[in-house]
Amino acid sequence: MGIVVENIERADPEVIAGLAECGVATVHEAQGRSGLLASYMRPIYPGARIAGSAVTISAPPGDNWMVHVAIEQLKDGDILVLAPTSPSDAGYFGDLLATSAMARGCRGLVIDAGVRDVADLTKMGFPIWSHHVCAQGTVKETPGSVNVPVVCAGALVNPGDVIVADDDGVCVVRREAAGDVLKAAEARMANEEAKRKRLAAGELGLDIYGMRERLKEKGLKYV
Amino acid sequence: MGIVVENIERADPEVIAGLAECGVATVHEAQGRSGLLASYMRPIYPGARIAGSAVTISAPPGDNWMVHVAIEQLKDGDILVLAPTSPSDAGYFGDLLATSAMARGCRGLVIDAGVRDVADLTKMGFPIWSHHVCAQGTVKETPGSVNVPVVCAGALVNPGDVIVADDDGVCVVRREAAGDVLKAAEARMANEEAKRKRLAAGELGLDIYGMRERLKEKGLKYV
Amino acid sequence: MGIVVENIERADPEVIAGLAECGVATVHEAQGRSGLLASYMRPIYPGARIAGSAVTISAPPGDNWMVHVAIEQLKDGDILVLAPTSPSDAGYFGDLLATSAMARGCRGLVIDAGVRDVADLTKMGFPIWSHHVCAQGTVKETPGSVNVPVVCAGALVNPGDVIVADDDGVCVVRREAAGDVLKAAEARMANEEAKRKRLAAGELGLDIYGMRERLKEKGLKYV
Amino acid sequence: MGIVVENIERADPEVIAGLAECGVATVHEAQGRSGLLASYMRPIYPGARIAGSAVTISAPPGDNWMVHVAIEQLKDGDILVLAPTSPSDAGYFGDLLATSAMARGCRGLVIDAGVRDVADLTKMGFPIWSHHVCAQGTVKETPGSVNVPVVCAGALVNPGDVIVADDDGVCVVRREAAGDVLKAAEARMANEEAKRKRLAAGELGLDIYGMRERLKEKGLKYV
Amino acid sequence: MGIVVENIERADPEVIAGLAECGVATVHEAQGRSGLLASYMRPIYPGARIAGSAVTISAPPGDNWMVHVAIEQLKDGDILVLAPTSPSDAGYFGDLLATSAMARGCRGLVIDAGVRDVADLTKMGFPIWSHHVCAQGTVKETPGSVNVPVVCAGALVNPGDVIVADDDGVCVVRREAAGDVLKAAEARMANEEAKRKRLAAGELGLDIYGMRERLKEKGLKYV
Amino acid sequence: MGIVVENIERADPEVIAGLAECGVATVHEAQGRSGLLASYMRPIYPGARIAGSAVTISAPPGDNWMVHVAIEQLKDGDILVLAPTSPSDAGYFGDLLATSAMARGCRGLVIDAGVRDVADLTKMGFPIWSHHVCAQGTVKETPGSVNVPVVCAGALVNPGDVIVADDDGVCVVRREAAGDVLKAAEARMANEEAKRKRLAAGELGLDIYGMRERLKEKGLKYV
Repeated sequence: MGIVVENIERADPEVIAGLAECGVATVHEAQGRSGLLASYMRPIYPGARIAGSAVTISAPPGDNWMVHVAIEQLKDGDILVLAPTSPSDAGYFGDLLATSAMARGCRGLVIDAGVRDVADLTKMGFPIWSHHVCAQGTVKETPGSVNVPVVCAGALVNPGDVIVADDDGVCVVRREAAGDVLKAAEARMANEEAKRKRLAAGELGLDIYGMRERLKEKGLKYV
Repeated sequence: MGIVVENIERADPEVIAGLAECGVATVHEAQGRSGLLASYMRPIYPGARIAGSAVTISAPPGDNWMVHVAIEQLKDGDILVLAPTSPSDAGYFGDLLATSAMARGCRGLVIDAGVRDVADLTKMGFPIWSHHVCAQGTVKETPGSVNVPVVCAGALVNPGDVIVADDDGVCVVRREAAGDVLKAAEARMANEEAKRKRLAAGELGLDIYGMRERLKEKGLKYV
Repeated sequence: MGIVVENIERADPEVIAGLAECGVATVHEAQGRSGLLASYMRPIYPGARIAGSAVTISAPPGDNWMVHVAIEQLKDGDILVLAPTSPSDAGYFGDLLATSAMARGCRGLVIDAGVRDVADLTKMGFPIWSHHVCAQGTVKETPGSVNVPVVCAGALVNPGDVIVADDDGVCVVRREAAGDVLKAAEARMANEEAKRKRLAAGELGLDIYGMRERLKEKGLKYV
Repeated sequence: MGIVVENIERADPEVIAGLAECGVATVHEAQGRSGLLASYMRPIYPGARIAGSAVTISAPPGDNWMVHVAIEQLKDGDILVLAPTSPSDAGYFGDLLATSAMARGCRGLVIDAGVRDVADLTKMGFPIWSHHVCAQGTVKETPGSVNVPVVCAGALVNPGDVIVADDDGVCVVRREAAGDVLKAAEARMANEEAKRKRLAAGELGLDIYGMRERLKEKGLKYV
Repeated sequence: MGIVVENIERADPEVIAGLAECGVATVHEAQGRSGLLASYMRPIYPGARIAGSAVTISAPPGDNWMVHVAIEQLKDGDILVLAPTSPSDAGYFGDLLATSAMARGCRGLVIDAGVRDVADLTKMGFPIWSHHVCAQGTVKETPGSVNVPVVCAGALVNPGDVIVADDDGVCVVRREAAGDVLKAAEARMANEEAKRKRLAAGELGLDIYGMRERLKEKGLKYV
Repeated sequence: MGIVVENIERADPEVIAGLAECGVATVHEAQGRSGLLASYMRPIYPGARIAGSAVTISAPPGDNWMVHVAIEQLKDGDILVLAPTSPSDAGYFGDLLATSAMARGCRGLVIDAGVRDVADLTKMGFPIWSHHVCAQGTVKETPGSVNVPVVCAGALVNPGDVIVADDDGVCVVRREAAGDVLKAAEARMANEEAKRKRLAAGELGLDIYGMRERLKEKGLKYV
């Protein structure tokens, strides 16, 4: 009963590039603290920061057949997002699939399950955010679906939504909202830059943000 | 109902420096295997080894207001220790707060909750031991307390107690006991150095520690 | 009631070296997806890839006495495998024991419990796959056994079985089967090399593996 | 930035009653194995089986203010569904709120956080499926939203969707699809009843479902 | 290095009885939301509600020797509180120890580890709040301490502090504060009774607590 | 590559009945504290105590096809033991399979995965020890094996081994050792009965077991 949706809309590439610059924490704040995946999603190596359009995969537990199907649907700048239909720590993805995905322009993988060959994947510079690292292989027996809405690590991801991922985790931005979120995120960064200088000079947040009065009203006592 | 205790006593800076030299495993042994925080407290990057005086924070879940209050109380060589009053994986602390804390002489953060901006924090060299890494932001709505006793990751920490942290985890040393613990830790290190040489030369622990007789008494059989 | 089995059989050193080359994911596939330890077993530093003969330890919770006993039984190229009889995150093993084990030719440690001194162990280049990192020490009160079959992280390990470990986790190969598994693993690697080139050139797994027909039969629809 | 949506559509009460009869496992199968909440959602007492329309709550961690707001929106036959915006095990809900919700016709609560007063709630016969039981109280400081789409325990719940819950867990059925899912579920139950009789008489599933041939083709060997 | 403190002070028996009446959630609120043990502490059977004076045990992992020592220190109305020095799920306590503890007037056990013989313990009506149920036995090899301060399931418990436990979990009340906490808890219960009647009659919390204005100020919108 | 072993040896039915009488904690002690499954294996309802011969199932994640195959292999008094090859919380087993298994004389199920229809299974009196309760269904796509050795919840189970299960958990006894273990368990129970009387009369374990001297030698101090 699986389906593959072949034509999905994607956000503007410049907007996507801008969101990558801003990073997960800023983007997440800029869209009202929504869209974050569970904090158990960790990068296989530190230092990557990417954004791209989601090509989604709904896959049975321990079955990676749909990854092959999804790779054909990739366009330059996409990110694969895989959600298993039942928890699994099996290694759905390794260096061969990464080779294939990179050849199609894929920027990375977000998977609420396991991956393997992480030493090779690190050398190749293919970034992955996963729930597990596990050498356990998978079968190719049961179809799932590609480019349908999935719930991945607790967050709803629609095909074509923008995924932002860095060392702080993974965040999803609705495709239609990406431009507005970028504006809000850039405003936030400009604002932060000014504050960073004042804080580095030893000024206190209590004074910069004018918090002393409100803390007093709420009953904070110094003893 | 929050309070801030402004004047706390701290241990002798030379004793604190000595405890940092010894490291967590040795200090923990030297004070009778007590004071260790839960092993889920992990460093955001490897290689840091610090000691300092605890400035403690009791904060509501998902509310980092008290961190701003605590930063004003920091003196050179202090370490922030934050315990939420209910479990939370939210990111209480990021690069702006670290900039502010470093400007006040803070050596690091120990937090039984989440942090974010870990790529920037790594570049800045601000060491953190946390339960989670998570981009989820926090609010500033409910006061907590600063410099009251807290239970952080299962261990009681009083303000002014000495925190020792390295790649093995985090240990707390009572302020009044810090001098005695340092003496015991240094004796232990000297003793270990001698043993390391004999073990590196191929001598067995069974012989160095005279264990063969006692194992026989306890019924160990070779077959 | 503890016992120590002194003479165990080991696999052919060249076969062991060959298995190390292949790595965990390939070896695990080559022996029919069996023998993998639970995915919570993680390396203390990235990049190590080893294979060796298992010297097994069954130890009480929080008691590392048997590690000293096991070190005497080590031969060049062995790997220590420790399973506690009840869950424990205590640090059974640190830099002194590693110094002693290395002096006896030990290649590494696999332990379903905790280790400590990980900064020193990383500098020494002694690789460990563990369930926890924890500075909590252990006692030497109750004997266990050495070189008996143990269940470690969910997998049965017999003394003399071959352990393969890398960044993907840990796999055990039965001693008697090691030669056959190596042949199957090497065949698999040769096959993968050819596929990697085709995938890197942009060919799809769907075509290389002829999956399109079977997916259609199973009802996959493109929309 | 919180909002409350006051008028939501609900499914036909007879359809809802029919879905309660079928139970979670059957409904979940009948809609293509989708819509299940994570298996950590457990009933506070055994034996309840309910269905109703979701009134959803998105609440900050450790803040139950929105529960009061949501109770005003309840109609007879509704079920409250609460998702915190960051993980929390705090007790958001106890016997006073249950008294209020029951007075408004509420059939139960599904909450990806904690509840308390479970002895009283059991005596009152107010069924709850929760992630935690915890006496820790909450504050009323930060607004959230009522009747917006939420992701609860990994599943997307829209306001007005049908919630089915019993000892096997919790399942959500899209409001628009409820009638069709009920038909499929009833067909499934009729079919199961016939099979149950044959199985009780000792006939084998291998024969009833004609599995022997297909197992042979897949290579199963009897030895 | 273990010690046993023989004479500890206890709170007034009438105050203790009053705290049992109030239950964990009310007592925890009445003392400013402090003193709660982690929510993973669950009763072995539903329906018990007790309070008593803590006789504390600090025990090594997998070693229940100190339970025998502690039983001698019990007085009528006491509750045993056991904290292991390293995590353990072993079964420290079963029906024989319960028989002995009951003969000394003990009201129950709170243990951040495992227990066994739970079917017999249920029949005997000896209530236990534990982290695990596990048949794994323990040894009697290493002394610990009795009646020293312990951190149990994340909360500090001093000998003689009052333990309150029911189906919602476990809470500790400082011995010196027990009388004041009881007064605050009883006031809270009287207040709740009045509210319960109004809520049962269909009045809304929004009106009873006058929340509408404050929600409007915080920006809540009805749409 | 699946296999089904059709003829397995079983232990003497009277020995099996005797082991059920003794219960898990006693049997586990009597065989030297070995053979216990992980403590996360919990009964779906309290009060059952059974023993029987293991018919083992090695099954892929989320695929219950082999349960049908295994049911044909059941003889009167057997217990099904299912271990998935990769972690899964899916519901492999429900009321239809239980109807079929009971018709073949099966006494219960031990499964390191999920089950569903637990309300019906409770009414039918079919006891199950599982890792999860979950309504998520499974497929029938990939063969596994029946009556091969499996590692279930961390313990090795051979086909024909005796499974003992009650409210304390699950224990496996090697088939060849079952008679000896029963003798040791019965001796242990007789011994416990005498001690229970003395303890109920208020005598202390410290005196009955003569522990005072040994505690003194180990350095325990009364203060």
